[in-house]
Amino acid sequence: MQGKPVRNSLVEMIQMVRPEDANPLGIAFGGKVVAWMDMAAAISAMRHARIPCVTASIDSLGFLSPIHIGEFAIIRAQVNYTGKTSMEVGVTIDVEDPLTGIRKRTTSGYLTFVALGQNGHPVQIAPIIPETPEEQRMYEEAQRRREEKLKRRGESI
Amino acid sequence: MQGKPVRNSLVEMIQMVRPEDANPLGIAFGGKVVAWMDMAAAISAMRHARIPCVTASIDSLGFLSPIHIGEFAIIRAQVNYTGKTSMEVGVTIDVEDPLTGIRKRTTSGYLTFVALGQNGHPVQIAPIIPETPEEQRMYEEAQRRREEKLKRRGESI
Amino acid sequence: MQGKPVRNSLVEMIQMVRPEDANPLGIAFGGKVVAWMDMAAAISAMRHARIPCVTASIDSLGFLSPIHIGEFAIIRAQVNYTGKTSMEVGVTIDVEDPLTGIRKRTTSGYLTFVALGQNGHPVQIAPIIPETPEEQRMYEEAQRRREEKLKRRGESI
Amino acid sequence: MQGKPVRNSLVEMIQMVRPEDANPLGIAFGGKVVAWMDMAAAISAMRHARIPCVTASIDSLGFLSPIHIGEFAIIRAQVNYTGKTSMEVGVTIDVEDPLTGIRKRTTSGYLTFVALGQNGHPVQIAPIIPETPEEQRMYEEAQRRREEKLKRRGESI
Amino acid sequence: MQGKPVRNSLVEMIQMVRPEDANPLGIAFGGKVVAWMDMAAAISAMRHARIPCVTASIDSLGFLSPIHIGEFAIIRAQVNYTGKTSMEVGVTIDVEDPLTGIRKRTTSGYLTFVALGQNGHPVQIAPIIPETPEEQRMYEEAQRRREEKLKRRGESI
Amino acid sequence: MQGKPVRNSLVEMIQMVRPEDANPLGIAFGGKVVAWMDMAAAISAMRHARIPCVTASIDSLGFLSPIHIGEFAIIRAQVNYTGKTSMEVGVTIDVEDPLTGIRKRTTSGYLTFVALGQNGHPVQIAPIIPETPEEQRMYEEAQRRREEKLKRRGESI
Repeated sequence: MQGKPVRNSLVEMIQMVRPEDANPLGIAFGGKVVAWMDMAAAISAMRHARIPCVTASIDSLGFLSPIHIGEFAIIRAQVNYTGKTSMEVGVTIDVEDPLTGIRKRTTSGYLTFVALGQNGHPVQIAPIIPETPEEQRMYEEAQRRREEKLKRRGESI
Repeated sequence: MQGKPVRNSLVEMIQMVRPEDANPLGIAFGGKVVAWMDMAAAISAMRHARIPCVTASIDSLGFLSPIHIGEFAIIRAQVNYTGKTSMEVGVTIDVEDPLTGIRKRTTSGYLTFVALGQNGHPVQIAPIIPETPEEQRMYEEAQRRREEKLKRRGESI
Repeated sequence: MQGKPVRNSLVEMIQMVRPEDANPLGIAFGGKVVAWMDMAAAISAMRHARIPCVTASIDSLGFLSPIHIGEFAIIRAQVNYTGKTSMEVGVTIDVEDPLTGIRKRTTSGYLTFVALGQNGHPVQIAPIIPETPEEQRMYEEAQRRREEKLKRRGESI
Repeated sequence: MQGKPVRNSLVEMIQMVRPEDANPLGIAFGGKVVAWMDMAAAISAMRHARIPCVTASIDSLGFLSPIHIGEFAIIRAQVNYTGKTSMEVGVTIDVEDPLTGIRKRTTSGYLTFVALGQNGHPVQIAPIIPETPEEQRMYEEAQRRREEKLKRRGESI
Repeated sequence: MQGKPVRNSLVEMIQMVRPEDANPLGIAFGGKVVAWMDMAAAISAMRHARIPCVTASIDSLGFLSPIHIGEFAIIRAQVNYTGKTSMEVGVTIDVEDPLTGIRKRTTSGYLTFVALGQNGHPVQIAPIIPETPEEQRMYEEAQRRREEKLKRRGESI
Repeated sequence: MQGKPVRNSLVEMIQMVRPEDANPLGIAFGGKVVAWMDMAAAISAMRHARIPCVTASIDSLGFLSPIHIGEFAIIRAQVNYTGKTSMEVGVTIDVEDPLTGIRKRTTSGYLTFVALGQNGHPVQIAPIIPETPEEQRMYEEAQRRREEKLKRRGESI
């Protein structure tokens, strides 16, 4: 199976935080933010695999600062690493102040997706090809995370 | 007030069409699609004006082909033209087949936004500066649409 | 195919604007308002055609004043004009103050719908019959809008 | 306080049942249908009282037949009876087949609303004036229901 | 058909009231609260019958006090009584103050569900077996309500 | 500050998976499932702290098998461990087949929440007191996870 470059899997999504996305403190609900990240990551995984993909795990996802009603959440996703049937997708959220344009990183995390065949069983996907030094670094870090995870679980994914 | 280039106002948003977005025929509801376009256009208007903006009109918006459940809708918006307190935002939707990656234009339209000051009255915005030939063409077409519209209505906006 | 009177296609819908419909300024989102109009217009089109109909275009839709949380939005739709397979639906929104009952027009627009057969291709619909002078005027104006639009596009719909 | 006729409180709302309103059997969820009825009834109560009103009880609400995806639900509400600070609102739903136009009654029920003053305590409302024989009949039946309910509870509302 | 104890049908659900659940007064919409109760009751009915069930009626449901944004709504449901194809489900809501943990009963009601076979017609369900004195009391009260209702309607359900 | 037992923080929530929760494959969206878990975990954190809490991170969350439309998702949360201002909440989802009652574990994960004071800064919370051997085991595992995480990040949370 022929490899595909990381840039094929890039996804950019933007959301203005609305009252319906907020908790009683006036900031976006964690659950809503993760739902946006999962959507962006799922599209990224499918842009790489071109096969239906489902979320297998959320491995590490940190909320560094809250996102307020009215702010823009810029969600970006890309495939960092591929196994045989699964891939790690890195997702970040930058928040943009609508009145000043100032942006800052508020959330980042890693999600693992699995490609599913017609019968609902995992199917093989194309390997990802990191091209830039940054992509190469992300690939190696993802590989390390995967190994640590396998070691912790003592089982293959 | 200093002008700002069109590229400052670019917005890209992506949505996977879900069952909750669909009508009984299994295709995305017109109303849902317009809601996405309005959101992207509002963010574009605010990226230009850096002032809260509200939709003043939807001037012409055509649905060329349906978007099915599971497909990706790629929504793009940019400010085409600015008046004193209002601006025309052009929005397009390309649909991407998740399994083949093939994209085609399904929707395009023009929305007008007005910037609102603290008191809820329209306030002046920076002029847009078209830089590329394409941006220049969009600017002129938007200007022509505006003049036709003013003529049809026989009133200023 | 036998014609049907405009009154067959009348639709009235009412919505109380809730926090979940509002933008950060506390007024109903343009996109949400259009979604209501599209829904009412789709029902109007189907009440005339009695065939599944989808939105083909939003031709001109103006937001004259904002609708606040707690206010009632009264959405009315009717078929103004029919072509062979498409029809123009006129939609208005009056906002009603819940405490005083005072109403005013806040939004009006025209949407075009197409009737779709089993195979997804446009199918012929019954002609609309304007009966009152007001309906006759709406019919003629819609006809004029259609001709202008065809002239602008240089193509048939 | 001067009475107001029942016709002032009439509300008509229409909803096309969408996949997002349906349960796994493809018919509208009971909870969703009641939410529509409660919304229509709340608007009816406020059209009569012109004071913010909240649901106090749902007294008897029967689902005679299911509403399927794609069908139109026509929700109608009117104030049947008024006490000092509360009122009974009658609500019905007729379902309309989009392809044939055939309608049938699927749901009807009675809801009680209370008008709330600034401090959140019940406040007096204008008496309802039944004008037609049908309205008179509804008024008397509502009065009888109220008396039975008070007797069953052994307490005033 | 073998009977099943009430405890099999117990359901506990919890919801934090979010801005999207609230009306313009900042308290949970009646319609939203009923939708939660209907969901819990439907699950309770299906836990007893193990057959798809739909809401047949909401017989008596009182809102004793409002639920504010940020509060926890604890919804509990259980089958009180079974007929041949239908059952009465009792539902209560206790509201919990998130900062003090103080709870109070805000809503209670009875809903009737019918079990549906493949063809959409009512099918027989197992009888419920009340075990505790409280369950026995609920059973008898439900039976009395059912008899009164049949008498009022002069028809069998 | 006086400690509180784990059982104070227990939360049980149940959701029937509806078409609006599903992806195009007919199974619950990962993002939706995480939103439910985040809600349950937030309530659990607040039941322990009795202070507003926000999601700080999702540390490890695995989707073992899909949840289909119509199935019941039983979400359980409890505080496993407390630091000075943050706590780890363990969340599991068991899926219940509505027709057979058979349940199986489909999802489990750990989320970290931080208690926020009036000024939006973290505030001290009561220590959790594990009572049962199982709670003691969860506490120690959470402590180990926290130490590994701090080591990986080389920073305190």
